[in-house]
Amino acid sequence: MCQLLGMNCNTPTDIVFSFEGFRRRGGLTDNHADGFGIGFFEGKGVRLFHDDRPSAGSPVADLVKAYQIKSENVIAHIRKATQGQTSLANTHPFMREMWGEYWLFAHNGHLKNFHPETGGFYRPVGNTDSERAFCYILEQLRQRFSERPDTDTLFDAVTALTDEIRSYGLFNFMMSNGEYLFAHASTLLYYIVRKAPFGEAHLLDDDVTVDFAAVTTPNDKVAVIATLPLTGNETWSQLAVNELILFQDGDIIRSDTPENPVYMSVEEGLDIARAAGVSV
Amino acid sequence: MCQLLGMNCNTPTDIVFSFEGFRRRGGLTDNHADGFGIGFFEGKGVRLFHDDRPSAGSPVADLVKAYQIKSENVIAHIRKATQGQTSLANTHPFMREMWGEYWLFAHNGHLKNFHPETGGFYRPVGNTDSERAFCYILEQLRQRFSERPDTDTLFDAVTALTDEIRSYGLFNFMMSNGEYLFAHASTLLYYIVRKAPFGEAHLLDDDVTVDFAAVTTPNDKVAVIATLPLTGNETWSQLAVNELILFQDGDIIRSDTPENPVYMSVEEGLDIARAAGVSV
Repeated sequence: MCQLLGMNCNTPTDIVFSFEGFRRRGGLTDNHADGFGIGFFEGKGVRLFHDDRPSAGSPVADLVKAYQIKSENVIAHIRKATQGQTSLANTHPFMREMWGEYWLFAHNGHLKNFHPETGGFYRPVGNTDSERAFCYILEQLRQRFSERPDTDTLFDAVTALTDEIRSYGLFNFMMSNGEYLFAHASTLLYYIVRKAPFGEAHLLDDDVTVDFAAVTTPNDKVAVIATLPLTGNETWSQLAVNELILFQDGDIIRSDTPENPVYMSVEEGLDIARAAGVSV
Repeated sequence: MCQLLGMNCNTPTDIVFSFEGFRRRGGLTDNHADGFGIGFFEGKGVRLFHDDRPSAGSPVADLVKAYQIKSENVIAHIRKATQGQTSLANTHPFMREMWGEYWLFAHNGHLKNFHPETGGFYRPVGNTDSERAFCYILEQLRQRFSERPDTDTLFDAVTALTDEIRSYGLFNFMMSNGEYLFAHASTLLYYIVRKAPFGEAHLLDDDVTVDFAAVTTPNDKVAVIATLPLTGNETWSQLAVNELILFQDGDIIRSDTPENPVYMSVEEGLDIARAAGVSV
């Protein structure tokens, strides 16, 4: 199974702390060693780094660390190839322009027999189920809306499309236009919203502690979303199975939660991934 | 005026030698200090690096040097901001997907009052004349062809669109889908096709010499295209004013050359840029 990392904030924030723990899962503390990708929104622009080398030893990942890029929206992905060859064209996050905005998308899971019709507006370049799902979402949204609709209309449309696509299999994903960040869980996805009063956090994958109080202002709100919690001394919330959450400015502004929410255990999540032929 | 650099080859080739001379123009040997961008095709995928710091001192440019990415098609751009704010969204090369392929585009020049209708398929994200021109080209191609047409049909269509857009002003550009590389000059653009027997080349902007015979095979063909020649001991060919050339596998496969070609002097090219309000 691949791993996802996302961040959505109300002020440009350095993701290095979270990324450092996350990237170590790419070949060091875990086995997601088929490349990685990370996209940072800066205003309307996107800084996108893809690498087909394992993130733990990647010079591109070293650059991300050294550069300390500040961003309000980030999506990152470590890949364990299960669908499609390992190639740059298959490396998440994927990017397209819609309504005059860039959109980023990263997925972990496996969609069985998901081959929607070739889109009029958006077509995959590589051969992953993930890029097909992204193009399908954009295609349907763009066919329905020639301009970006209001938040509620957009959320409802993405909810319906997510509901449709997840019938094909495992569909943990994140998607952002630099303002919104959508996060959906089929199995495992956790989040934490850090805000004042800020405390200390300690990485699970590395012996690193950060005191957020020293690097934030009292108004900062930073939501971090990840396949598995990245810190050991904070309380992460879990997305329910089939839950879709929309973040904006570090807050949850909409969610579609099943009536009787089920929270999957890590063991069960990994078992389901294995059974679906998704490497873990 | 911004500067352009492109490469089109029949085998994956390291662009570090050319890029090292080129990037020094971003703040060291010349004054193109408002950021830079470089896109490398690797198969159907693209590795895209954008930076709003001057290329001469940019850690992203250092990475490009250290990483020695091999590519068959590269487009790079050093920016001196004249149109639109300096922001990541305005940094070339721009990228879009068309016909299931990524396309890269970089421009130097200035298009006056070029505000085509908002596209159905492609819209600018930033606010440069350059991105508007790119989106207009793609929009027109995509409206006309739902799949990629044959080479001659595509070349003729791009020729007609180029002819239309250059009536708005200075339009030096390069555009590639990882297989084709289009290069068009309004003022200054030079190219060289390196093939066997390979010799030595010496950079104009740095005291560096490379012996291409030592790093190539006899079948290699490498076309390098740049606003101004990068080496002092080789013969670069100049594109005529309003000439469009299509490169594939390091060869020129089509060109649209004016009946009475005019070759602009460097002084005149820089004068015209200044007169058009394009910084040099």
